[in-house]
Amino acid sequence: MTGRWTIRPVGFVRSAIRTPGDAPKQGALEGTEAEIVVSPEFAEGLEGLERHGLGGKIIVLCWMHLADRARRKVHPRGQEDRPMRGVFSTRSPHRPNPISLYTVELLEIRGNVLRVRGMDAVDGTPVLDIKPHSPELDN
Amino acid sequence: MTGRWTIRPVGFVRSAIRTPGDAPKQGALEGTEAEIVVSPEFAEGLEGLERHGLGGKIIVLCWMHLADRARRKVHPRGQEDRPMRGVFSTRSPHRPNPISLYTVELLEIRGNVLRVRGMDAVDGTPVLDIKPHSPELDN
Repeated sequence: MTGRWTIRPVGFVRSAIRTPGDAPKQGALEGTEAEIVVSPEFAEGLEGLERHGLGGKIIVLCWMHLADRARRKVHPRGQEDRPMRGVFSTRSPHRPNPISLYTVELLEIRGNVLRVRGMDAVDGTPVLDIKPHSPELDN
Repeated sequence: MTGRWTIRPVGFVRSAIRTPGDAPKQGALEGTEAEIVVSPEFAEGLEGLERHGLGGKIIVLCWMHLADRARRKVHPRGQEDRPMRGVFSTRSPHRPNPISLYTVELLEIRGNVLRVRGMDAVDGTPVLDIKPHSPELDN
């Protein structure tokens, strides 16, 4: 397959993190809270998520719109004293398709807004997808 | 953010599964093996993945090119006797941005080909990204 496809955000992240430099290095571990604002035209897709359970885990895929897609190698964790490695062996935001993956705790659903814990995405980051986390599939 | 972005495969899946109907319902649980063939121009991005450890887990993001992107609700697991739910509360392939997520065991690296266990993607499925799995971030 050598095609190209167009992705379209289904929502965006609302958070207190204004720039990538502001993000804690391990947002999931720090318990940073954020909101996922789903666009009205996609809100119907949320139906049933409450059955998965508040306090349960969901996976949020985002598009890291500030990333450099041309990089093939990076310094792990951005530490320049560490030798460069291929981007696929790191969680760097800089990669050919800059899709980030957050496994977060779902705290609250208010209409088309999800409040979550464990997300360090920059305010305004486009959201591509939301999935229930499955311990069997994802651990 | 209301932009649109173009994604481009970095490789494809080589597997014995020819159609979605052939796929076992829980590929991760069945231990199905497959290969990830990374395009030569992106192969440099694999450097260092062997350090993550053969037998270790990686995350593979794919583009489900056969999916229906217009659906907002589906029958869970495709079972028509179950009431429809929003796609974001299911792992259905049919969703606005049909990105699938596989947490698989990395068995072998031969140049630009990764052999993995736990993947039920259809042969030829485009691969968008590869990441090391992190128990802290992803469980």
